[in-house]
Amino acid sequence: MTAKISRFLEEVRPVTPCVVVDLDVIRDNYYSLRRWLPLAQVYYAVKANPAPEIVRMLAGLGSSFDVASRGEIDLCLANGVAAEAISFGNTIKKQRDIAYAYDRGVRLFAFDSEAELEKLAAAAPGARVFCRLLMTCDGAEWPLSRKFGCEFEMARDLLVRARDLGLDPYGVSFHVGSQQTDLAQWDLAVGKAAMLFTALDEAGIDLRMVNLGGGFPARYRKDIPAIERYADAVMTAMTNHFGNNIPAMIIEPGRSLVGDAGILETEVVLISRKSYDESVRWVYLDVGKFGGLAETMDEAIKYRIQTGHEGDDTAPVVLAGPTCDSADILYEKAQYEMPVTLAVGDRVRILSTGAYTTSYSAVNFNGFEPLKAYFI
Amino acid sequence: MTAKISRFLEEVRPVTPCVVVDLDVIRDNYYSLRRWLPLAQVYYAVKANPAPEIVRMLAGLGSSFDVASRGEIDLCLANGVAAEAISFGNTIKKQRDIAYAYDRGVRLFAFDSEAELEKLAAAAPGARVFCRLLMTCDGAEWPLSRKFGCEFEMARDLLVRARDLGLDPYGVSFHVGSQQTDLAQWDLAVGKAAMLFTALDEAGIDLRMVNLGGGFPARYRKDIPAIERYADAVMTAMTNHFGNNIPAMIIEPGRSLVGDAGILETEVVLISRKSYDESVRWVYLDVGKFGGLAETMDEAIKYRIQTGHEGDDTAPVVLAGPTCDSADILYEKAQYEMPVTLAVGDRVRILSTGAYTTSYSAVNFNGFEPLKAYFI
Repeated sequence: MTAKISRFLEEVRPVTPCVVVDLDVIRDNYYSLRRWLPLAQVYYAVKANPAPEIVRMLAGLGSSFDVASRGEIDLCLANGVAAEAISFGNTIKKQRDIAYAYDRGVRLFAFDSEAELEKLAAAAPGARVFCRLLMTCDGAEWPLSRKFGCEFEMARDLLVRARDLGLDPYGVSFHVGSQQTDLAQWDLAVGKAAMLFTALDEAGIDLRMVNLGGGFPARYRKDIPAIERYADAVMTAMTNHFGNNIPAMIIEPGRSLVGDAGILETEVVLISRKSYDESVRWVYLDVGKFGGLAETMDEAIKYRIQTGHEGDDTAPVVLAGPTCDSADILYEKAQYEMPVTLAVGDRVRILSTGAYTTSYSAVNFNGFEPLKAYFI
Repeated sequence: MTAKISRFLEEVRPVTPCVVVDLDVIRDNYYSLRRWLPLAQVYYAVKANPAPEIVRMLAGLGSSFDVASRGEIDLCLANGVAAEAISFGNTIKKQRDIAYAYDRGVRLFAFDSEAELEKLAAAAPGARVFCRLLMTCDGAEWPLSRKFGCEFEMARDLLVRARDLGLDPYGVSFHVGSQQTDLAQWDLAVGKAAMLFTALDEAGIDLRMVNLGGGFPARYRKDIPAIERYADAVMTAMTNHFGNNIPAMIIEPGRSLVGDAGILETEVVLISRKSYDESVRWVYLDVGKFGGLAETMDEAIKYRIQTGHEGDDTAPVVLAGPTCDSADILYEKAQYEMPVTLAVGDRVRILSTGAYTTSYSAVNFNGFEPLKAYFI
């Protein structure tokens, strides 16, 4: 909670629910990453928070951008981003969207399959392409599925095929899992990438780039290692596996840049019990899973919450959203406690909600408006 | 798949992904419910599909409406629904939203807690109120959590308190779980409701209404009992427990009215494998969990899918959406098979997608537009 956000909330008293994002925090986070990982070019993962205010500011600071769709390309180009600063990082693209990006000057694309490579060869001739490696992601709070990436042997063959199709086999990418707190995962992943460099070298192909993806965390309920520790883990791994021949490095932070910059202000709509036998209170907020807190799915992301009653006695609660959807429960097993003095009508603040909130909001679900956002 | 939808898709070739809803099917479903449950007043659960086209048509047919929020009240009033035909069925309401509804003439409200009752007494004096009972929902494909309802003893006391607060204790509601296929659940639930009538009678309160909620299914991958069987289960339970003194009955169908009326047309964006060892294909569509298919969460709702290659050999697939979100997988464990002849660029049709699709779409998630809808 920054002084700036606190002042805004008190002076404006915006209608809840809303997220207030402090752009200064994002700028500081960007500078921190640049300071601790000077060799890496930052490609902001636009999907984490696609607000024009954020894109414009980061473009001004010299950031590049990782986009998932044509819509995000349009957003970047409309907000001062040069086409050369865009990486089309989604491995699942329609051929006409690849052509759309290429026509506008985008020259860097991800892939993880032969069919995608053929689309790229047809619609983006000569472009730089990088292959995403499949990783297991132990230790991530928001673990990745097997949706993206392919196994080592296939990646090797596909990069050779990229050259044969007239593309520029530029490098390799991976993702250790969002909110990854096991730093040893970086060494494993970089080691695999380096092996791919060697394998491709034998095929006469000179890979020049490692894309380390995202995975740097924001601070939720658990403490996290400082950004320096992440940077150190990454650079130690790079030096271990590439010696003094370090390739170009790309990182794609989303959550770690914008997560901590946002505060979600919400109102307590109802506090109740289900029966006389149960002591646990149900606390219903005016924001839920479909209004911006989708990352509480399976109680994966555990946000810190401030009630304004700090210091009072607390007791167990189940936290839920305002819709008629019975799946709209935030925390039932995660053992949240809230002050016994909490009352209907109180305003409650959910911390580190700058990432994956506004963009996860449903279109007017149950007739509730999507999450509003203020950038200050 | 109706002839009308099929013709529309062929003649218009709308940009994918989109849902096409055949309003005639909804009308037929409405008439079917009326025919088989003539004693029950239908309150359409607007949240299932809040399209003005649907609300207007159902209002014209004489339906009433179950709403979850102020936004849905505005939607109904703007589309020809009389305030007396609206039930504010959400048990979690802000007091100012109750007042808003009351000011516009809404006089029927749900509750399940003391705090909510106090808000109702303050903001909706004299209104009819019904208490939601907590049910266990064995057999539902989309089981309800304990989010709504309270236990029997509390419900009894709260209905007495409603009278003491100047409200009209009108009846009791329950919900057997969405997509409920175990017909015996109705008997259990109605039995509990009847016990509450007896208990309240002893307190000098004459309950007059049973709200049976929703739970009638739409047809997904599994066959379902015909609507007559549901109607029969409901009426048998009512007669069993209430004899020839049957109270007013309300049903709140959502899914069963609109689910089967919609077809979602989507395009195959990519087909790939993860490694040479694995034979399962990953099929990526241009619609996913965040673009309208949220009910595939935990693979709960299993839609039927038509590919246009019916009759060809099939093989196992994992089905996933187009976003960079690794949770955006539709079916990984549900053992879907698709034709081996399926190709990138093919159009695929997902059946019974008229309910909980457009309204579950995220706001431009990953830069992809929310699901479009056509009503024909």
